[in-house]
Amino acid sequence: MTLKQNWQQNRQITLASRPVGAPTPDNFKLRETAIPKPAQGQVLLRTIYLSLDPYMRGRMSDAKSYAEPVAINEVMIGGAVCRVEQSHHENFQVGDLVVAYTGWQDYAIANADELLKLPEQLTTPSYALGVLGMPGLTAYMGLLDIGQPKAGETVVVAAASGAVGSLVGQIAKLHGCHVVGIAGSAEKCHYVTDSLGFDACLNHRDSNLAEQLAQQCPNGIDIYFENVGGAVFDAVMPLLNASARVPLCGLISQYNATELPSGPDRLSQLMGLLLVKRIKMQGFIVFDDYGHRYNEFSQAMSKWLAEGKITYREDMVQGLEHAANAFMGLLTGENFGKLVVQVGPLTLAK
Amino acid sequence: MTLKQNWQQNRQITLASRPVGAPTPDNFKLRETAIPKPAQGQVLLRTIYLSLDPYMRGRMSDAKSYAEPVAINEVMIGGAVCRVEQSHHENFQVGDLVVAYTGWQDYAIANADELLKLPEQLTTPSYALGVLGMPGLTAYMGLLDIGQPKAGETVVVAAASGAVGSLVGQIAKLHGCHVVGIAGSAEKCHYVTDSLGFDACLNHRDSNLAEQLAQQCPNGIDIYFENVGGAVFDAVMPLLNASARVPLCGLISQYNATELPSGPDRLSQLMGLLLVKRIKMQGFIVFDDYGHRYNEFSQAMSKWLAEGKITYREDMVQGLEHAANAFMGLLTGENFGKLVVQVGPLTLAK
Repeated sequence: MTLKQNWQQNRQITLASRPVGAPTPDNFKLRETAIPKPAQGQVLLRTIYLSLDPYMRGRMSDAKSYAEPVAINEVMIGGAVCRVEQSHHENFQVGDLVVAYTGWQDYAIANADELLKLPEQLTTPSYALGVLGMPGLTAYMGLLDIGQPKAGETVVVAAASGAVGSLVGQIAKLHGCHVVGIAGSAEKCHYVTDSLGFDACLNHRDSNLAEQLAQQCPNGIDIYFENVGGAVFDAVMPLLNASARVPLCGLISQYNATELPSGPDRLSQLMGLLLVKRIKMQGFIVFDDYGHRYNEFSQAMSKWLAEGKITYREDMVQGLEHAANAFMGLLTGENFGKLVVQVGPLTLAK
Repeated sequence: MTLKQNWQQNRQITLASRPVGAPTPDNFKLRETAIPKPAQGQVLLRTIYLSLDPYMRGRMSDAKSYAEPVAINEVMIGGAVCRVEQSHHENFQVGDLVVAYTGWQDYAIANADELLKLPEQLTTPSYALGVLGMPGLTAYMGLLDIGQPKAGETVVVAAASGAVGSLVGQIAKLHGCHVVGIAGSAEKCHYVTDSLGFDACLNHRDSNLAEQLAQQCPNGIDIYFENVGGAVFDAVMPLLNASARVPLCGLISQYNATELPSGPDRLSQLMGLLLVKRIKMQGFIVFDDYGHRYNEFSQAMSKWLAEGKITYREDMVQGLEHAANAFMGLLTGENFGKLVVQVGPLTLAK
């Protein structure tokens, strides 16, 4: 998968086969096709930044879910920042930057109503895929609308150095909470406490995570922002306070699972815990549930960024041909910050 | 445990030992003590109706929970309708009817601020333990505040002939929902459809519950009011719609469990379901979470009762000496309607 861009053809990464367990290079295929031509009302887009996100693992499977799976031999889906290369629609000019769900490819055709034009004052366009995009909205709405944090409460955030978790914890700090992160390496933990300002951060690869977490949460846990599942949730469960809230936006530790873990069956234990502690656990899919509140989020987050109250880190991979490897690493926590692939140059000059 | 009331002594049923699994007669002990004397600011209460409710099973165990367990050799706790026999407080007169948490005994002392005086127009005082009391408030708030039913949605209610379930389904019907009950006998199911007006009712002892439930819920399930757990929840899970709500007020099928069921461990499966279907599952303890909204509930329910829109059934057991047997039967579904023990006569004439 080393085909280099020649700008005469359209490279596409397709789903070659469905993964069983963790995705492997065989599941992806790089192919070249002709650059498509826009019809009336359409534009031709060139991908600049492609967002890689854990939800894409779900779309590679054909298990019943909230969204249609990617079909075999179809282009992998994904959101991207693109530049308009040709326009057959009056609202878009060549050179405009837009966000669109064009997927893992160099070029794509899109209808004008599928595009979100980026504001010209956005100095770092890739932020539209992260802190000012889907991960940011996820953090903001999951924490504030479902979590309802109050000053002095304890908030625990898994995947704390990642795109969503890093924002959840910083927003919780802005609301006066005691914030404990959980991340996958000592280096990430240092970043979470020193650069992001969390009160503490624990390495989930340590053997005594449960004890460390109990020490860092002497008053229990009021909000657990869940995007990981598995052993981290096991450590969180006994510490959840009465009336705790568990916004649930991902379970990355489970995405590659091929079968259920062995017993005992703790389903009834979880329900019993929710009952006796009056806990709310709520899954959400951010654009379906909160898309209508994007502007509210965008204004708040832009202000925090401008004031230097939010720190945001990207893990930028160069070249579409590295997307599959980067995505496989995302599922095992190899990225450090929001994973973005730079597919094409930002400026028009070649 | 056949000691009869002589009105010279106070009979008390105490917790003799903690049950392992289902409670047995050995766990209870009937004893006689002197009738206590009220101090200044207190009243002497005589129990008329004692409420028996599933939550009491939890208080018999010393597992960590939202409330302190009953201590060994202490009187079993419980809400009751009582008559004031002596009053040393200006707000209460001999003969007043009150609700108080006096427990399983003939007489008790209470402070004035622990009493809720019943309105004189309440023609059936025992209703204060059911349709107009804790079970009614549980049904009303769980369904309306957590469940947020909309006309045309499908609501499934377990323990549909019981104190809470019967009200949940009828309130859901008043909100235009398609309501399917689940109960433990053909006789109960007939009552649920014919007298309570549910659209359908299934017997959870039938072997093909899951298939029958799917047939009765052709559009899936939008609200599942959970007070049972176990096999009923297993049948409900695959039918839950996107954005479904699961108010969780009890898990009676689990209360006597001594260990977790064997595997596989479906905890992650449940969380995955909540995630991809954006489901809210929320436990609640009604007086802690909704006590401040009792008046709103009481007005609405009193109006429905007066208009004949709510049907309510009691299962009245005669005599405190039968309380333990009645309670053990409650946990296996032997009662039919709200279980109440008539401990003393309603009228003052002896």
